[in-house]
Amino acid sequence: MSKKPSASWIAVDWGTSNLRVWIMDESSAAVAKVQSTNGMGVLAPEQFEDALLALIDPYLTHGTITPVICAGMVGARQGWVEAPYVATPCTPPNRAAATLVPTKDPRVSVHILPGVKQMSPPDVMRGEETQIAGVVKQHPNFDGILCLPGTHTKWVHISAGEIVSFQTFMTGEMFALLGGQSVLRHSVTTDDWDQDSFITAAADGMARPQAIAANLFGIRAAGLVSQQDAKTARARLSGLLIGAELVAARAYWLGQNVAIVGDDNIGDLYRAALAEQGVTAAVWDVSDLTLSGLIGAYDTQQEATK
Amino acid sequence: MSKKPSASWIAVDWGTSNLRVWIMDESSAAVAKVQSTNGMGVLAPEQFEDALLALIDPYLTHGTITPVICAGMVGARQGWVEAPYVATPCTPPNRAAATLVPTKDPRVSVHILPGVKQMSPPDVMRGEETQIAGVVKQHPNFDGILCLPGTHTKWVHISAGEIVSFQTFMTGEMFALLGGQSVLRHSVTTDDWDQDSFITAAADGMARPQAIAANLFGIRAAGLVSQQDAKTARARLSGLLIGAELVAARAYWLGQNVAIVGDDNIGDLYRAALAEQGVTAAVWDVSDLTLSGLIGAYDTQQEATK
Repeated sequence: MSKKPSASWIAVDWGTSNLRVWIMDESSAAVAKVQSTNGMGVLAPEQFEDALLALIDPYLTHGTITPVICAGMVGARQGWVEAPYVATPCTPPNRAAATLVPTKDPRVSVHILPGVKQMSPPDVMRGEETQIAGVVKQHPNFDGILCLPGTHTKWVHISAGEIVSFQTFMTGEMFALLGGQSVLRHSVTTDDWDQDSFITAAADGMARPQAIAANLFGIRAAGLVSQQDAKTARARLSGLLIGAELVAARAYWLGQNVAIVGDDNIGDLYRAALAEQGVTAAVWDVSDLTLSGLIGAYDTQQEATK
Repeated sequence: MSKKPSASWIAVDWGTSNLRVWIMDESSAAVAKVQSTNGMGVLAPEQFEDALLALIDPYLTHGTITPVICAGMVGARQGWVEAPYVATPCTPPNRAAATLVPTKDPRVSVHILPGVKQMSPPDVMRGEETQIAGVVKQHPNFDGILCLPGTHTKWVHISAGEIVSFQTFMTGEMFALLGGQSVLRHSVTTDDWDQDSFITAAADGMARPQAIAANLFGIRAAGLVSQQDAKTARARLSGLLIGAELVAARAYWLGQNVAIVGDDNIGDLYRAALAEQGVTAAVWDVSDLTLSGLIGAYDTQQEATK
């Protein structure tokens, strides 16, 4: 086993399903990346410290306290320690607003960044605010709308480096539940994809969003009555849900400067659906921006205490 | 154990979750009712016969062939034997159109009634057609719209005893998945109910059906940000979904003669939501109508062969 570099500080993206860790040197460059599937969803409060140490122990130095900056669902009520929300309008939260977590191991000082809440209409985010911090750091002049697709897709109005307002859609979670556990699981038995079916379905979803529950059952019926194939069905399920979302989010994207923060697959779907509406959106890599946001959250505090 | 009456014939409502059996005398009166949770969903094809005999064996007579008339998901592709669909427009199918199932036990002659399909837009039903047969038998002059709420709610246009057209909504299944398995499970942790919240949410769902995925997440957010309670949340989840459905089904109910076929709980929700729209709908008991429909399906054939 080779000698591990020692960490100056540690950046952590701790979501529901995954724990991603970057080992940072003193110039805030990542010198190693480690990860596990010990997400918030599978851990009891007393298990978080061990799950973290299992990944970072080789990078810690005896006699030194290494700061660990965490973002994401780790700070939820069901997480390690609840990190209270900051209310909009606000800049993406940094380490000054973080919650310090008591640890048994004296070599770490663990900080969980807050989520962001909106009082009216009620909404919350936890994790995305750090991606937004990355956008603000990498694109300081960006003014417009961010779309952050995922389990709970967020549409966020950014102006002058602040989160002005946002709205969350359960589109990704509905896709997963309907495709995996509803009667539609018999119809979407493939990982293949028919992009034409997606585009048509997104248009259908936009034209009659109220018909979503009927159009969804229509996917099953078309398989039984007219042998619609699985890749058409799977793309149609996605398209109907995203189309309905785009209608409801129209005030966010219509005539606006839009950027999408997501991985290649889901980001490209939103880009394609928006392109059909005449909106040209950039797609920015979510992993890059998360790390950038964690660096921003850490460095801000460094600067503030200089 | 008391002596069991012997069956002249046997009526079976065999759905995804339950197997319900009525033992019938020669005048088609039910003399006993037995049931189990051996629904289609938990049985492999070779297990159906045993699941049925476990309930009906005491009522069979040696040396006599007892007809068994089955309706429901037992005839689906995943069921015992697939019973092909009859296409709309059609009368509710009777025994003449049923599929005869080979059995090992010589004492029974098992018939599975067909489902009903619609070619355009594609749609299917399996089980509801027998409830509709019950309506046609009990209310022979009914002309109008039937709403059959459930896992897959059906809106059905009935005229002159025929199923003219229908549309299915996955509303019930979405309620179960979202309330039981999505992030909303943390918000709807009760069996209590707030009817005012339901009515308000149904109106919200009708006003902006496209916002369903955002309004759903709003239930979670309202719990986190403003301590919305669980019974308000649960009723709101139901109301938003039913409201969106009512918008899409408006062509079915607006200005029409509407009757609801369902159990008390779900039937009353649809009745209340429709009443807000100025529609007075009767609620008819689904269990009565299913048996009536099975009797109709059996007797029609008896009459035809007289």
